[in-house]
Amino acid sequence: MLVEAYGAHAGDKPLEPLQIPRRTPGAHDVQIDIAFCGICHSDLHQVRAEWAGTRFPCVPGHEIVGRVAAVGPDVSGLRVGDLVGVGCIVDSCKHCHDCGAGLENYCDGMVGTYNSPTPDEPGWTLGGYSQKIVVHERYVLRIRHPESQLAAVAPLLCAGITTYSPLRHWNAGPGRKVGVVGIGGLGHMGVKLAHAMGAHVVAFTTSESKREAARALGASEVVVSRHPQELARHAGSFDFILDTVAAPHDLDALLVLLKRDGTLTLVGAPATPHPSPNVFNLIMKRRSLAGSMIGGIPETQEMLDFCAEHGIVADIELVRADQINAAYERMLRGDVKYRFVIDNATLAR
Amino acid sequence: MLVEAYGAHAGDKPLEPLQIPRRTPGAHDVQIDIAFCGICHSDLHQVRAEWAGTRFPCVPGHEIVGRVAAVGPDVSGLRVGDLVGVGCIVDSCKHCHDCGAGLENYCDGMVGTYNSPTPDEPGWTLGGYSQKIVVHERYVLRIRHPESQLAAVAPLLCAGITTYSPLRHWNAGPGRKVGVVGIGGLGHMGVKLAHAMGAHVVAFTTSESKREAARALGASEVVVSRHPQELARHAGSFDFILDTVAAPHDLDALLVLLKRDGTLTLVGAPATPHPSPNVFNLIMKRRSLAGSMIGGIPETQEMLDFCAEHGIVADIELVRADQINAAYERMLRGDVKYRFVIDNATLAR
Repeated sequence: MLVEAYGAHAGDKPLEPLQIPRRTPGAHDVQIDIAFCGICHSDLHQVRAEWAGTRFPCVPGHEIVGRVAAVGPDVSGLRVGDLVGVGCIVDSCKHCHDCGAGLENYCDGMVGTYNSPTPDEPGWTLGGYSQKIVVHERYVLRIRHPESQLAAVAPLLCAGITTYSPLRHWNAGPGRKVGVVGIGGLGHMGVKLAHAMGAHVVAFTTSESKREAARALGASEVVVSRHPQELARHAGSFDFILDTVAAPHDLDALLVLLKRDGTLTLVGAPATPHPSPNVFNLIMKRRSLAGSMIGGIPETQEMLDFCAEHGIVADIELVRADQINAAYERMLRGDVKYRFVIDNATLAR
Repeated sequence: MLVEAYGAHAGDKPLEPLQIPRRTPGAHDVQIDIAFCGICHSDLHQVRAEWAGTRFPCVPGHEIVGRVAAVGPDVSGLRVGDLVGVGCIVDSCKHCHDCGAGLENYCDGMVGTYNSPTPDEPGWTLGGYSQKIVVHERYVLRIRHPESQLAAVAPLLCAGITTYSPLRHWNAGPGRKVGVVGIGGLGHMGVKLAHAMGAHVVAFTTSESKREAARALGASEVVVSRHPQELARHAGSFDFILDTVAAPHDLDALLVLLKRDGTLTLVGAPATPHPSPNVFNLIMKRRSLAGSMIGGIPETQEMLDFCAEHGIVADIELVRADQINAAYERMLRGDVKYRFVIDNATLAR
């Protein structure tokens, strides 16, 4: 079937309306009518060919929510009409050690929701800036939020799980002091989630203007990281710091804030390297510098259920399809609180 | 009391005989007749003022073994004549969270065995290149090896614990694949210890000539890291890699060898930074880059007991005091298998 979508024909071209094919659902497939799709910074990098290997036409989008429109005969647990989500993963090998552990995100055969090889036409995956998508049931998440919140649930599928997974893995919770660096699409979710987990949350921002906003999201304290004396007050005190900033920056200023055995975890990869961290800052307190990439499917379901239970959604600004290019420009200027979400009904022609 | 020692009066002067004061033992002090003292690369850095803050005269040495010569009235568990050791730590605050956890090595008030502030004359600690030392009982380790092995036990007090502690902390043992990078003073102990813990040990060396020697130490496999195809064979396969190389080198070549959730731990700090590691290599498999510094007192005792039980000592070359300067030059050329140890009887005049 052909569906309406929004994508680009080249890295230097704006996104525009186009039609894309979707496969007929197989035995284990779920066909979804997409209601909303979040705009992630990765979408911009990929569609503008700022990362290697973009295939065109490129249709981004991996923060997908909608309703089940059809299911294959062997699908269990999902029915037509169910509210569902699809994140960054639409397939994986299903038999490796990582898949067995529910960590499909670390599977070497992980298939991304867009720009990954697939036997489907045209040969690579096409994402959620589209009316419909067909996905194997394993990678379809159940949404238990009220339907009225559906648009604001969309960013949980990437920004939510990308911050939830490391917060859980490094035991954010009561009695733990947790930093969240960068109060943007990812960071604003990190603050909300870490606060809901019961941690003492300190938000780090370079911008004085975000101080009050970060408190409103759930931060107990806010550090404006341009002020060395604000940083110094927290030396050696953090159990865990989640760093969502992809631009190159000084990691040592954060490492020295960790306690013995503390971890600084990066979820963004800079286009050019961070200044090399000082090894003494790792050795002196047995600190770790780590990375984390999205999360597995079971943990994504756990995150969605956790958010439904705690009433957590993203702070969003809804846009029409014809506003996507403008939204990209605003995202580059940091002019969004905190995530754009596309109303996919506006894709219809 | 004054005792004979070997030390330097300035960073650009060779070490020479000198006399140093030792305090009269207090209630909890142990006075030790030093039999042997290992030569650590740190000794050279400190005495040549290659690190900041060297106080002169400087007497290095923190791989100390000998016999108890006297004990203060409140010392329990140690008697005159006992075989004992002293490592890198001779005091700490004794009441912080780290000291409470037996991790005196991470205490902010940790007093190093040489070049640390002390109320004793001359105002900074003086190390094991000397006939006697007086140390609070908390920091004195019991040695259960046969006396015939005493000289080869000395390096366990720094090189041994510096490798044992991270191997234990990151769970080296049966069913785990462990890399040890750099087959020198630290690395040769790392291979022996990881092998005795039951891990599958892969030694990494830049030198083809060390291939057989590394196997003899207990490595099941040896990678000559100048050969990219030897490295590539191990991609994504290690649970843990212990990196003992202090010279700046490519950390990415090692990070990509780790499995998901694997850790690369550095125990050497380079004088100039390593090339900045690629954040993607951390993110893609949730890998960690960590540091570790020596070990705490209880773990040092555990390590000594483990080594006594498994018949583990360092491979050493015994030198006289008047050979220390020459030994430093040979150490700089890598011409030692694998640790020089001073026969402290040769300090007598």
